[in-house]
Amino acid sequence: VDYQHVQVPFEITLWIMLASLAKIGFHLYNKLPSVVPESCLLIFVGLIMGGIIYGFNDRSPPVMDSDIFFLYLLPPIVLDAGYFMPSRPFFENMGTILLYAVVGTVWNVFGIGFSLYGICQVKAFQLQDVSLLHNLLFGSLIAAVDPVAVLAVFEEIHVNEKLHILVFGESLLNDAVTVVLYKLFRSFCEMPAINSLDVLAGVGQFFVVGLGGVLVGLTFGLTAAFTTRFTKDIRVIEPLFVFLYSYLSYLTAEMFHLSGIVAIIACAMGMKRYVEANISLKSHTTVKYFMKMWSSVSDTLIFIFLGVSTIGENHEWNWPYICFTVIFCLVWRASGVLVLTFFVNRFHVNSITGKDQFIIAYGGLRGAICFSLVFLLPDFHRKKLFIAATTVVILFTVFIQGMTIRPLVDLLAVKRKRESAPTVGEQIHIRFLDHLLAGIEDISGHWGQYYWKDKLEYFNSKYLQKMLLREYDQPKSSIVLLYEKLERKHAIELAEAGQLGHAPHHPALLNNRAVITDKRLEDTLNPDVLDNMQEILARNLYRTRRTGPAYNRHTLPGESEPVEHAKEILILRHRGL
Amino acid sequence: VDYQHVQVPFEITLWIMLASLAKIGFHLYNKLPSVVPESCLLIFVGLIMGGIIYGFNDRSPPVMDSDIFFLYLLPPIVLDAGYFMPSRPFFENMGTILLYAVVGTVWNVFGIGFSLYGICQVKAFQLQDVSLLHNLLFGSLIAAVDPVAVLAVFEEIHVNEKLHILVFGESLLNDAVTVVLYKLFRSFCEMPAINSLDVLAGVGQFFVVGLGGVLVGLTFGLTAAFTTRFTKDIRVIEPLFVFLYSYLSYLTAEMFHLSGIVAIIACAMGMKRYVEANISLKSHTTVKYFMKMWSSVSDTLIFIFLGVSTIGENHEWNWPYICFTVIFCLVWRASGVLVLTFFVNRFHVNSITGKDQFIIAYGGLRGAICFSLVFLLPDFHRKKLFIAATTVVILFTVFIQGMTIRPLVDLLAVKRKRESAPTVGEQIHIRFLDHLLAGIEDISGHWGQYYWKDKLEYFNSKYLQKMLLREYDQPKSSIVLLYEKLERKHAIELAEAGQLGHAPHHPALLNNRAVITDKRLEDTLNPDVLDNMQEILARNLYRTRRTGPAYNRHTLPGESEPVEHAKEILILRHRGL
Repeated sequence: VDYQHVQVPFEITLWIMLASLAKIGFHLYNKLPSVVPESCLLIFVGLIMGGIIYGFNDRSPPVMDSDIFFLYLLPPIVLDAGYFMPSRPFFENMGTILLYAVVGTVWNVFGIGFSLYGICQVKAFQLQDVSLLHNLLFGSLIAAVDPVAVLAVFEEIHVNEKLHILVFGESLLNDAVTVVLYKLFRSFCEMPAINSLDVLAGVGQFFVVGLGGVLVGLTFGLTAAFTTRFTKDIRVIEPLFVFLYSYLSYLTAEMFHLSGIVAIIACAMGMKRYVEANISLKSHTTVKYFMKMWSSVSDTLIFIFLGVSTIGENHEWNWPYICFTVIFCLVWRASGVLVLTFFVNRFHVNSITGKDQFIIAYGGLRGAICFSLVFLLPDFHRKKLFIAATTVVILFTVFIQGMTIRPLVDLLAVKRKRESAPTVGEQIHIRFLDHLLAGIEDISGHWGQYYWKDKLEYFNSKYLQKMLLREYDQPKSSIVLLYEKLERKHAIELAEAGQLGHAPHHPALLNNRAVITDKRLEDTLNPDVLDNMQEILARNLYRTRRTGPAYNRHTLPGESEPVEHAKEILILRHRGL
Repeated sequence: VDYQHVQVPFEITLWIMLASLAKIGFHLYNKLPSVVPESCLLIFVGLIMGGIIYGFNDRSPPVMDSDIFFLYLLPPIVLDAGYFMPSRPFFENMGTILLYAVVGTVWNVFGIGFSLYGICQVKAFQLQDVSLLHNLLFGSLIAAVDPVAVLAVFEEIHVNEKLHILVFGESLLNDAVTVVLYKLFRSFCEMPAINSLDVLAGVGQFFVVGLGGVLVGLTFGLTAAFTTRFTKDIRVIEPLFVFLYSYLSYLTAEMFHLSGIVAIIACAMGMKRYVEANISLKSHTTVKYFMKMWSSVSDTLIFIFLGVSTIGENHEWNWPYICFTVIFCLVWRASGVLVLTFFVNRFHVNSITGKDQFIIAYGGLRGAICFSLVFLLPDFHRKKLFIAATTVVILFTVFIQGMTIRPLVDLLAVKRKRESAPTVGEQIHIRFLDHLLAGIEDISGHWGQYYWKDKLEYFNSKYLQKMLLREYDQPKSSIVLLYEKLERKHAIELAEAGQLGHAPHHPALLNNRAVITDKRLEDTLNPDVLDNMQEILARNLYRTRRTGPAYNRHTLPGESEPVEHAKEILILRHRGL
């Protein structure tokens, strides 16, 4: 047996296999996942695994490597989140999300950091050696809401779209803030003295890290879209580019110390519409399916490893510090949400209700990102205390909050996600209102959300689409696309019911009355006349243009269409003569 | 910039990106890939890349790591090959393939080894220090036809199915022989003395390595099929199991020094039919697509790396040895094919023609497997000579033979692959003949191919399917499946032509004569009578069973069917009363 040789891929495959089998296991008992979130079950499996390893080896089981987490496990989840991000609610609530993500996170970091420093001054707790900077550093890693944990819980409880995007969007975008604060405090810890210039530079970094990430992401996203223009002859490697470019955007951002999460989200959102139009339907199924699969596996692995890493001897159980950490996390998040929402509600018509605020505050779950960050801390004598506190906070939020949030949502009767897709009528009205508001903003000179959206759409159809799409012509309106999809589905259903061959006879059986009246009308006509009529019709019939051009404020309808119609009629006439 | 941190994934991603972009590049010029095989183009790109690296760094560019090749690049290609292997021609020509793969490879190894040893005795060439064992070791690695190279060339020239499976099957199955001989000679090289027991053990290893590989593969394949029984609730990770189990089968086989290639092929062929039946259609699209994508990328990377690794200073250019290697490779392969085919043709009705023999001999391309094996050789003073000879042989076969094989196939008018799929009539006849021959073999007591196939089919439907399929009922006959597929396709076409909504009217336009005579018949009936008739019909109508049970020699048709029919009629009657 030569185990050494295959060890690395073999163990990776086995871990993934274990994770997948665990998932299958949960779903065999339908009751279980409806009560306990999958993330809790997975952590539990991890704890058992860790216990077994610990019991057999008599030493701490291997801890999840932070590099593996940040380089291999996190990107698929964020890519999936970005690619399937509902862009409309995201951009509509962009301001609120940014406020929560930036100001809210800073509020939490400093709140938790300073309060914990206060606790450290109590002599009875024996914590006087933990400096303010170390507390702030700890605050910066414990304050950030974790996208993986939030996604795992919120995907199962189906709250309304706005609430979901507020919590989830915040958890994604606070990455930039966390990265900056964490690195700032870590370098401050190692510096002998801090002057005000350093602090100023830190504030400037916010923008560099966040906007830099967006820039890197968009660059790679648009390059990806451009690349898929040329894959017509080798459909088989099309899906690859979606993954390669988004991964590159993440790695590039990380390389320049920008926010990788922001970059990959910008990349995914930027490329989505162009890539979808360029690649084949099967490629797109593969992309979607594989993204979901990958993120699901990463997610599973992260929670299992969280469980495994919890077991071991790298904890220092100073209970006052740990308990106060949990309490401060809850208190500062709740107060932050209350204060920020107060300001948000003053400027918005659709205010965020008290129930929503409660769920936003309560949904602030911590997860694997804190966990990885705390292990990345430079060695100092209280690192084990921080690890213990982080572990407890994560377990508390994932288990207690994660398991009770569903009953609470039920109890408070929080508005749920609507089950049905918007009707065609609603879609038309939403679109109409968008254009109307863009027009109003244009006239009134108010550069609001609709104004910018409209300008972006114009830029997109005028330049970007021409450059990035393979077959650039008037895009089909989404309503026409929906109609085609429904028709195709209907056809398949008919075929599967075996009624396609009999279609002409079938309706006669159901509403034969109508057909018979129809027939009576036909009876009054001489069969020969009817015959003749139908022949003329068949000869002059041309297929109606199914796809009208999409409505667009910036193009006039029917520019070249009538000419072609007329030409076709002419050709058919000629043939008939 | 923190490049160190992201280096590994970044460089891997960049290499894959380079490979994919190179592929796109070739296909932009349609002319190029139709003349030069893609493998040649990719090696050429690799040579240029290697040259650039060499020029800038002034040292040999990195050589493809044998571990990376065997653990990460080879499995996807072999999995793809095994999963899409046309099983009928493969099993029909199993005997011939095995003869070529086992006896043919041994013939080549010893032929090349001994002749090269002869060359080494010529004093003028200054090669007397290369022992017989070293020559045999070199023969064992240079003799094996490479599946990757064969696949890359033969996929483009579309020779007939039998010829394709003979060359390709041989290239896959000779892995077991190569592994055994290579390891045998390598250990002999390090042994002080060789006794006859060692040689005998070597012969025994053939069977262990080959059959062990099949066993490992089948075990994992059937486990995979069994696992997919339970994935109904989490469709999203279904495709994963196909990849995980086949990869595990490969790694396990490698771990026990069995043939990994044989294992992964057995795994893929074993699981295919059950997995396909268990997983959803979209999962299956993802599996197929991703397998193709992955193997295509691996393939591309291998050829590029082959090119890159060629450049450098690890060669010893002893031209007589190198030239004679190329000549002996050609001569021994040709003679081997001639001799073996002579025996094969004596026992088969469908003989292998002279043209086919020529293509089989000429299609013996060498590729990355030899290349990786030669680098894995233990260090000895002539290793660089072997590397040089292997490089030249690979480049010669891929470039000269690979580029001329298509014109030769045209010139010789070798029977091509039929373009169209077999008609339903042909399928029925093939099936009928199979059953007939199985019956004849059964009666005559001849345990031939058909007898075993029939027994296997019986075992499959009696035990395996019940255990491995989720919804086990009488499988649909392939003709019924085909019909359903065609109906669905037809329905989609109708929907896309916009004629579905008008379906009831549409046929009236085309063959209105028939409808009108129909109407005349109806005219003679009183509308009320017609109405009544249709109502009675609609009440008593039950949907005909669309899926008759598949024909099977071992079950009698219509065992439970009529009872259910009668029951349904009864229920409908009751409801009507």
